[in-house]
Amino acid sequence: MESGRRIEMALDRAVAHAEAPGAPPLLAEALRYAVFPGGHRIRPRLCLSVARACGDDDPAGSEAAAAAIELLHCASLVHDDLPCFDDAPMRRQKPSVHVAFGEPIAVLTGDALIVLAFETLARSAGSHPARLGRLVGLLGRAAGSPSGIAAGQAWESEAHISLSDYQQAKTGALFAAATVAGAAAAGADSEPWRRLGECLGEAYQVADDLRDVACRQEEIGKPAGRDATLGRPNAAALLGTGGALDRLSRLTREAVAAIPACPGMAALTAEIEAQARLFLPASLRAVTA
Amino acid sequence: MESGRRIEMALDRAVAHAEAPGAPPLLAEALRYAVFPGGHRIRPRLCLSVARACGDDDPAGSEAAAAAIELLHCASLVHDDLPCFDDAPMRRQKPSVHVAFGEPIAVLTGDALIVLAFETLARSAGSHPARLGRLVGLLGRAAGSPSGIAAGQAWESEAHISLSDYQQAKTGALFAAATVAGAAAAGADSEPWRRLGECLGEAYQVADDLRDVACRQEEIGKPAGRDATLGRPNAAALLGTGGALDRLSRLTREAVAAIPACPGMAALTAEIEAQARLFLPASLRAVTA
Repeated sequence: MESGRRIEMALDRAVAHAEAPGAPPLLAEALRYAVFPGGHRIRPRLCLSVARACGDDDPAGSEAAAAAIELLHCASLVHDDLPCFDDAPMRRQKPSVHVAFGEPIAVLTGDALIVLAFETLARSAGSHPARLGRLVGLLGRAAGSPSGIAAGQAWESEAHISLSDYQQAKTGALFAAATVAGAAAAGADSEPWRRLGECLGEAYQVADDLRDVACRQEEIGKPAGRDATLGRPNAAALLGTGGALDRLSRLTREAVAAIPACPGMAALTAEIEAQARLFLPASLRAVTA
Repeated sequence: MESGRRIEMALDRAVAHAEAPGAPPLLAEALRYAVFPGGHRIRPRLCLSVARACGDDDPAGSEAAAAAIELLHCASLVHDDLPCFDDAPMRRQKPSVHVAFGEPIAVLTGDALIVLAFETLARSAGSHPARLGRLVGLLGRAAGSPSGIAAGQAWESEAHISLSDYQQAKTGALFAAATVAGAAAAGADSEPWRRLGECLGEAYQVADDLRDVACRQEEIGKPAGRDATLGRPNAAALLGTGGALDRLSRLTREAVAAIPACPGMAALTAEIEAQARLFLPASLRAVTA
């Protein structure tokens, strides 16, 4: 089955558990709203690509890992959009969760999605129980403190911000989780896969900065120019569009060079290059063609 | 080692991971502030009591389960106190986390504590990997949707609230998790232990309602009379102080009767009775003596 469909089905199974009979109706509706329809599902695609390159001997396990990573990503979007952070009115071309459902339900949606990520891992652990501890540890590291997405967001509350810690935690951590968890879900040694995820996370951050500076709201599904408004660092503002595009190309090459030896190396290289192109919206892809 | 000390040490080890070098300083400080000093640690004590009654063949595993339950409880307190929920200025005799650290850090502290709960389980899974899936599933069920604490809190956003679903999810779920996880951490069949936790959760809810109606702020460490202010159901307001105290006694007897046959049954019965008395603050304990 094609990756995109495997991911949507795994996410649907996960969310169905959380909206089972007895769930408070608004929360159940908000959970589905926060997860569907998705964006490019870049992180879970990366997770499945790495699992496939490592043999993918437990497809249910790698699908659960991919879904868990996307659930953590969705949770972070819902909380980052809250009034006390970015106060973002739109996300993925529709009103953000707190605008559509109110702030209390948005806080709880994020909480419940974090919990659901770990439950999803546990539900698929039947055939390889020993892999679960590793996967919970890898996803926990990517989501929490000291160096996960919660920590990344918390750097915004510091007077003296460590730019590399901030970006590595806020964006890099979940990309790194995608590669290491993909390997771990397939029973492979996971740490050699971390550098690939880190490079791609940095590349994605540069692309996101480019979109923020160079695109209109309609194209990216959320307000443009937010970094300048919120006083956040932005690679495209710092290096100019050309400089940022160069940096993006260099990081993509570095990512490909970081792929560890594995059965599916050639196919994975092609996939990574195709996915990295998807980081950019259409109007900027033409510039790099 | 005495239970209270085992719990504090397990919590300290868990929080130390989250505040490791590289953590954003405010978040690290807020994580410790949210967990220490604690209240009576009723849920983790219950978890260790059940594990002991079941043989406690893996003390590191039961301590991790107890700590994880308390971390989830602390997370829910931090988020429940937020301005969009109870807007509580005080918690455990000191300013609540959002008052002390600001709302963004409070949201992230709750998030990071949820993640840390699952990481803590995973870190101790080495000796019994097969138990981890069960524990992650039990704690996920208690924390998320459809019937965990996030769902319990979400009932407050519904126009038509199911009182029993609300109380069972908001308070009962984590007490039930304490008993079933205590059993699971000791390798015992966990479901027979659920009813004990549910009875104790209901008893705790009645005691909490009594405290809210009958005690002064100084004694309970948070503002009194909040249920009336927030329009929430309260057993003591409904049944009167005498009626609520009767109900509390009946639930404690029901709890003791629900203890499954196990090696440490007599000691557990005594512990449960002692712990149930601790639910009430001193001024009300005299009434029941």
